[in-house]
Amino acid sequence: MPSVIALDAMGSDKAPKPEIEGALQAARHHGASVLLVGPEPQLRAELARYPGASRLPIEVVHASEVITMDDKVEAIRAKRDSSIRVGLRLVRDGRAAGFVTAGNTGAAMATTRMVLGSLPGVDRPALAAAFPTVLNTAAILLDVGANVDCTAINLEQFAVMGDIYCRAIFGMKRPRIGLLSIGEEETKGNELTREAFQLLKRLPINFIGNVEGRDLYNGHVDVIVADGFVGNVALKTSEGVARLVRAVLKETLKATITRQFGALLSRNAFSDFKKRLDHTEYGGAPLLGVKGVSIITHGSSNTNAIKNAIRVAAEFAEGKVNETIERELAGLRSHAALSTS
Amino acid sequence: MPSVIALDAMGSDKAPKPEIEGALQAARHHGASVLLVGPEPQLRAELARYPGASRLPIEVVHASEVITMDDKVEAIRAKRDSSIRVGLRLVRDGRAAGFVTAGNTGAAMATTRMVLGSLPGVDRPALAAAFPTVLNTAAILLDVGANVDCTAINLEQFAVMGDIYCRAIFGMKRPRIGLLSIGEEETKGNELTREAFQLLKRLPINFIGNVEGRDLYNGHVDVIVADGFVGNVALKTSEGVARLVRAVLKETLKATITRQFGALLSRNAFSDFKKRLDHTEYGGAPLLGVKGVSIITHGSSNTNAIKNAIRVAAEFAEGKVNETIERELAGLRSHAALSTS
Repeated sequence: MPSVIALDAMGSDKAPKPEIEGALQAARHHGASVLLVGPEPQLRAELARYPGASRLPIEVVHASEVITMDDKVEAIRAKRDSSIRVGLRLVRDGRAAGFVTAGNTGAAMATTRMVLGSLPGVDRPALAAAFPTVLNTAAILLDVGANVDCTAINLEQFAVMGDIYCRAIFGMKRPRIGLLSIGEEETKGNELTREAFQLLKRLPINFIGNVEGRDLYNGHVDVIVADGFVGNVALKTSEGVARLVRAVLKETLKATITRQFGALLSRNAFSDFKKRLDHTEYGGAPLLGVKGVSIITHGSSNTNAIKNAIRVAAEFAEGKVNETIERELAGLRSHAALSTS
Repeated sequence: MPSVIALDAMGSDKAPKPEIEGALQAARHHGASVLLVGPEPQLRAELARYPGASRLPIEVVHASEVITMDDKVEAIRAKRDSSIRVGLRLVRDGRAAGFVTAGNTGAAMATTRMVLGSLPGVDRPALAAAFPTVLNTAAILLDVGANVDCTAINLEQFAVMGDIYCRAIFGMKRPRIGLLSIGEEETKGNELTREAFQLLKRLPINFIGNVEGRDLYNGHVDVIVADGFVGNVALKTSEGVARLVRAVLKETLKATITRQFGALLSRNAFSDFKKRLDHTEYGGAPLLGVKGVSIITHGSSNTNAIKNAIRVAAEFAEGKVNETIERELAGLRSHAALSTS
């Protein structure tokens, strides 16, 4: 029996098209069952345009409100019938095994915490972003979700959760866990990382010590642990550099006819290049440590990103990631390997 | 009378070649006088290989020791006759107007602080890295030099120093100053940035509010202020992404003969691309807030990077950046616009 995944149909910048097409593909190729959450009349009309959609395990669940990218905290709280809130209630009530949204990240995180609550033993759920490396592997960085002013104990829990996620979703046997700092030696870093280093090295994980910003993409580390402020800065800085590189490359390749012709001959290289660096392959960022499965993807998500996020949500549920997190945190705590907060 | 600049001849990965050639070019093209600091017999022998070098204003100053990239704090302290220490003493003693090194960043910063000391009114000197933007302008990020666990008052002083440096060296009239955070609203960020926001908005600078990692490279901000831990992570993450992009691009362009031919036709685009993103054009990172001029460039610096760093050191001295920092900090303090620590 495949997992049922609730999908916010109104999240992405081009919603609901990528959501509907992503749901169709996930149902066709991964056998997923999808609950499309959003304004029912609109979604039914859109779905009807796809031949064969009615034979796939896709249902519409009505939600009358939509949270926008610009909505502030008050607006988010007030929209009690938003597609994010309704979708998460489906998870809480056991009608869906997981939830996926490409909507407002802050709203999705806050609503997930509110509706689902944290797992026992988790002080702060953490958003884990996946990205590509030079070695064509995936690595994850957590927290990127604005858990600012973390304690060392928060970081310790992030390490345990990241380790479990990597094993379950990426099939790694013994992920290498690094602490994001500004020098390799254990004395390097700020007060927080120096304290966290001492906690991480006692854990029964493959802790490889401090890593630096330049290690994020070199494939030397699989899980990078950081305070949510630092993780978010690292993630958004990466986006900034990627945009700079794309813009400058485009400009220089267009400058002369010869270069344009050369670029035309190499065009498959550029599409391969784009694909290799494409975040849509990794299925979005799970909020780790909540009672349920909640995956947040980029607002610019396309059909492929949505399809992969649905697949990851199903794997997350079927891989019993949360049960493992709960069990391992309890086990570590009873062996006093994990700090109590 | 052009400024005399002391240059650590033994700093870069390929020292002393880039240093000697950079000094020759700076002397020829910018009229700089250079004191080459390092093992005298070796440097004299190397210099003698360049015809005409003896007619340029380049002198050798002997230093018997060299700090390596791997030297730890104790080793750095023990090497009292290192090229970094000797070069900085030339500045302290008034024999040189500024110092340039491509050596061990940590050693250069620590030795600069020790030998030159801080300017009155500066609690912590800050390393300011310059980088290119999409709009082909330069922006600076400070601190990237490991001033971890900064206070809001430290960040306030960084903002004032960054503003003055941008005006003096990049000729900007009214640089846009941003605070590196994780959201635009003034309530977004961690305890440190929220407190710093309140201080920065009272300063008579062009404070544009919080900026995010993605804004570093989009040309919307000229000076980005950050705690040294966060700034260092942002800088090194950028290096990581740049390496990833280069590696993947190279790999995909080599995959087929057609692509290789296309890349050959576009090769000038790739060299323009490299030049546009080349940090060597910006003349290294000054340590702002010390009594004197100390510029630290990347260990991979080539001739061009060294030449530009010598030019920037001279402009820094001639532009009276330090006098301005001292005067403006004192002025702000007397008007109670600046916080006292």
